[in-house]
Amino acid sequence: MEKNYLLTPGPTPLPPAVCAAQAQPIIHHRTPQFQAILKEVTEGLKYVFKTKNDVFILTSSGTGAMEAAVANLLSPGDTAITVEGGKFGERWTEICKSYGINTKVIKVEWGKAVEPKEIEKLLQQDPAVKAVFVTACETSTGVSNDMKAIGEIVKATNAVLVVDAISALASLDLQTDNWSLDVVVSGSQKGLMLPPGLAFISVSEKAYKLVEVAESPRYYFDLRLAKKAWEKIDTPFTPAITTIIALKAALDIIKQEGLENIFSRHKKMAQATRKAMLALGLELFAPEASSDAVTAVKVPEGIDGEKLVKTMRDTYGVTIAGGQAELKGKIFRIAHMGYINEFDIILCISCLEKVLHQMGYKFELGKGLQAAEEVFLK
Amino acid sequence: MEKNYLLTPGPTPLPPAVCAAQAQPIIHHRTPQFQAILKEVTEGLKYVFKTKNDVFILTSSGTGAMEAAVANLLSPGDTAITVEGGKFGERWTEICKSYGINTKVIKVEWGKAVEPKEIEKLLQQDPAVKAVFVTACETSTGVSNDMKAIGEIVKATNAVLVVDAISALASLDLQTDNWSLDVVVSGSQKGLMLPPGLAFISVSEKAYKLVEVAESPRYYFDLRLAKKAWEKIDTPFTPAITTIIALKAALDIIKQEGLENIFSRHKKMAQATRKAMLALGLELFAPEASSDAVTAVKVPEGIDGEKLVKTMRDTYGVTIAGGQAELKGKIFRIAHMGYINEFDIILCISCLEKVLHQMGYKFELGKGLQAAEEVFLK
Repeated sequence: MEKNYLLTPGPTPLPPAVCAAQAQPIIHHRTPQFQAILKEVTEGLKYVFKTKNDVFILTSSGTGAMEAAVANLLSPGDTAITVEGGKFGERWTEICKSYGINTKVIKVEWGKAVEPKEIEKLLQQDPAVKAVFVTACETSTGVSNDMKAIGEIVKATNAVLVVDAISALASLDLQTDNWSLDVVVSGSQKGLMLPPGLAFISVSEKAYKLVEVAESPRYYFDLRLAKKAWEKIDTPFTPAITTIIALKAALDIIKQEGLENIFSRHKKMAQATRKAMLALGLELFAPEASSDAVTAVKVPEGIDGEKLVKTMRDTYGVTIAGGQAELKGKIFRIAHMGYINEFDIILCISCLEKVLHQMGYKFELGKGLQAAEEVFLK
Repeated sequence: MEKNYLLTPGPTPLPPAVCAAQAQPIIHHRTPQFQAILKEVTEGLKYVFKTKNDVFILTSSGTGAMEAAVANLLSPGDTAITVEGGKFGERWTEICKSYGINTKVIKVEWGKAVEPKEIEKLLQQDPAVKAVFVTACETSTGVSNDMKAIGEIVKATNAVLVVDAISALASLDLQTDNWSLDVVVSGSQKGLMLPPGLAFISVSEKAYKLVEVAESPRYYFDLRLAKKAWEKIDTPFTPAITTIIALKAALDIIKQEGLENIFSRHKKMAQATRKAMLALGLELFAPEASSDAVTAVKVPEGIDGEKLVKTMRDTYGVTIAGGQAELKGKIFRIAHMGYINEFDIILCISCLEKVLHQMGYKFELGKGLQAAEEVFLK
């Protein structure tokens, strides 16, 4: 009997109501019926973003929205700061360089959060900096950055703050307006419990001033076209209709649980996961800055990390993520966001214990489960 | 009782097997299970494109693939020819201009096909032209261009031919390799019977030489990244997993019917639709170059075109398309491609007759249906 469980930090599992929404016959996008949905989900996204800013829906993966941010805010030769503490931080640098941006990179040791003061120092040194690109939750390392502190720093300057919240949105508390996050980008396949294929971007007044003058070439991701289309409750190009209808179903679930309850659930699952890992004698990859969306764990000495992840998936149907890029084989990552609950975490720990045991790793069987249960009972 | 019928030229209706595929639990994209699907659908796309060239899947609407073509082939200051015979031809010009391309525009009267000799003349005048951008089926006017003749002309020059086959692919015969179509772009929500959200792009050897040297900024749509990822049967960014799995279901249906049978079915439906319109005393918008994917019909004098389309949709559940841009209210368009069969055409004509009659248009009731039936019985 095959039964599969998904505990990867994107895609995350889909609620049955989302699956059902996707099976519906398609409707045309330029109809009052679809416009009503587009309006409703845009309002719903504003609730999740905690913003009154415009939020646009793009048909792309989250990286498309990252590129939209760079292309719409900057012109070739402009200066920007990027924070690199993992694969997705590096992506900001790569995109900026593709667009001929003069990029000042803050390198952060993988597994650590950026020191907000580093950003402040660099901004003071160079008042020409137009944008600061940060990753709220660095999915590749399981690290959360202090977006509130960074928001305060950037707010006091002429630069705009651009936040990759692809795995942070609806996973961790992220207060777009209160924390002065000028541009926030996200994707559908993480906290929003949808298949990949939609991206989102919010734009503050301060950021709009750059959008109006930026000279980078852009068309499909041109936010001026998105803003103009939105005046008629429309998108400039045919959107991923089905996924937007599924987004309505997902937002209904999110509103019903309530954002703060969702964050508490994620936090508790994160704590349980971390305690379980420690109880098994494993080491966290980011002990000081662990995100409540995903936990990265070091593969213990003598264990083949890639084989561990493959066996859990191919033999037992439990899919977690391995390490990416330079962390390949060195860490594994367990997601605890979106449509994942405490019993998913329990079964995942059980599967991990089983495979670690079979691979010869020494520990007391059941200790991880016990530690997790203790957290969940609190 | 509400029962809805979709006869718009994108999105087109979804087969039940496609809807069912979309309702499945999601799987992770970096798994052997998904890689097998990605490989299979890429092979299936090559069958539909009639090509041995690489075909890449992008997560975007078709316009994303159009921008990918411009950004990957050209550098700022390069010269290109665009053919404008409708809204989508104009899009090629708009994208080229966004990228700083020196654009030579061939203006074609809306409703007419481009004269291939016009392209030949312009290419002879300016040997610096690097690319020619043409729309195979101009969805906004229902016109098909002679891609075979244009292919022969461009093949003999240094320029590459780039074809918008968004509504043409799997709708009309399009022979990428035989006709020397260097770059062909398409989308999911037309002949391929999927929801919008995926785009496709094929690249010839001749075109690859431009991709390697093009200096336009690009990242999300960078075909060098797509090509590199494909070496490991992967995509550079998280793809629209669910739609790709649904693509497998759609390709299975296409392979079962067979491309040539699909084209014959579309052709017969197109003929029936055209004969029906003439029998009702209506005028075709593109009588000399009517596409077999979509028929555009002039709204008769004294009839409110927008109200006609709205009444069919909102009162009777039959959705056809109105005119776009300068043709708003002046034409309506009936799609006959993808998961649409002769009885869909029959019910659409019936609904059109009903509403035209109610709106006071004078004609003999049933004449349109009769003309269509005569074609279908041949």
